Amino acid sequence: MGYREFVIEGRNTVIEAFRSGKPIDRLFLQDGVQDGPIQTIKREARKQDTMIRFVAKERLDQLSETGKHQGVIAYTAAYEYVDVADILAAARSKNEPPFIILLDNIEDPHNLGAIIRTANVAGAHGVIIPKNRAAGLTATVARTSAGALNYTPVAKVTNLGKTIEELKKEGLWFVCADMNGTTMYQLDLTGPIGLVVGSEGEGVGRLVREKCDFIASIPMKGDIDSLNASVAAGVLAYEIVRQRMQ
Amino acid sequence: MGYREFVIEGRNTVIEAFRSGKPIDRLFLQDGVQDGPIQTIKREARKQDTMIRFVAKERLDQLSETGKHQGVIAYTAAYEYVDVADILAAARSKNEPPFIILLDNIEDPHNLGAIIRTANVAGAHGVIIPKNRAAGLTATVARTSAGALNYTPVAKVTNLGKTIEELKKEGLWFVCADMNGTTMYQLDLTGPIGLVVGSEGEGVGRLVREKCDFIASIPMKGDIDSLNASVAAGVLAYEIVRQRMQ
Repeated sequence: MGYREFVIEGRNTVIEAFRSGKPIDRLFLQDGVQDGPIQTIKREARKQDTMIRFVAKERLDQLSETGKHQGVIAYTAAYEYVDVADILAAARSKNEPPFIILLDNIEDPHNLGAIIRTANVAGAHGVIIPKNRAAGLTATVARTSAGALNYTPVAKVTNLGKTIEELKKEGLWFVCADMNGTTMYQLDLTGPIGLVVGSEGEGVGRLVREKCDFIASIPMKGDIDSLNASVAAGVLAYEIVRQRMQ
Repeated sequence: MGYREFVIEGRNTVIEAFRSGKPIDRLFLQDGVQDGPIQTIKREARKQDTMIRFVAKERLDQLSETGKHQGVIAYTAAYEYVDVADILAAARSKNEPPFIILLDNIEDPHNLGAIIRTANVAGAHGVIIPKNRAAGLTATVARTSAGALNYTPVAKVTNLGKTIEELKKEGLWFVCADMNGTTMYQLDLTGPIGLVVGSEGEGVGRLVREKCDFIASIPMKGDIDSLNASVAAGVLAYEIVRQRMQ
């Protein structure tokens, strides 16, 4: 497990990286350079919502590891995922009932990072994300996690519903965060538990929601009807903490 | 109360807006234009961390309201603040004990927006921010608040400590979110309350913290030692909601 960042330099290397779908977290371009390949790189960067910083040639010379940046330096990241079994093992080694946070449709890297951070601080044993459509573990996620990505294991699974089925056999209960469920204070959240959190727009997908044992709702007292996804995950995770502490 | 956005067009107008300290939330520049005034605008934008988007002339023509954008269009925002007394009046009109969230040192607009959103959903009657060093109510804040800025009143005060003193005379208790305090579950948070939340780096300032009646701590069960500021505010706000519901 762990998180590493790689430097990519030079026009063709960076264009290729974009086209192969590699997540480019940060892109440095030489100020004032406007030729074709640079325009292509800018276009690809905008497609991926990569932050572009325009800097002086001297800055690129400093950042460069090869000395051949051609006006372009990009940063990409690699993270080693764990298996779901490793998360269960982490719970066992601490002699605690498993507490896992599962994320469905969380595509925003800031939310993903903040949730991994919350998972760590709330004492969850790991986070599970689906392979498709989820934000990858990029530099933005690592930064937003405030270091938690180095401690809290993250597993990536093909089918979240199937993973839930398998974990039920290990004795876990699944509680899905959604509206129109039972107020979270009225649920017993003290046993081995998987907390399933969805995106703000779409919530938890229907197929995943149907696998859950309970729907837990955060009471809504205001004019708008949802919290930021990472805030909602925090509020629910801490209701689990509270019940477990009593 | 309310939030409005203004369009500013043309090189000198935008440069002047930057120099007068007006918050520019978004900046559109014509792709490929590189002359002196544009370089000045880019420099000012970087100083203020304004997001720059490079777009085609046709896009600027579409966005322009005057037809004289000269390759530059900027968006700035204006928000009408309320008085602290208006927040107390809001609580009275709902026949509820006041619940106010006070923010110290929160400079990140995403955190500010998420906290205003949480304040609304948790049923707080308003948010108080200090004049100095706080993030202003920009378009980013409005967007991150997911509409809550249109409902939840925000007051801006010169001296947070003095405001706390004044609100104590109105019967409010103040609880400050910080480490090394009493675990939040052990405090009585049901009365008229002001919840004071600080930034992640610095927490609540000493002078403000000393005015508070209690220090409330979120239990930390992991390897890292703090939550994202907006997640922490959410967890504490919902402990207040939970206690009030019982």
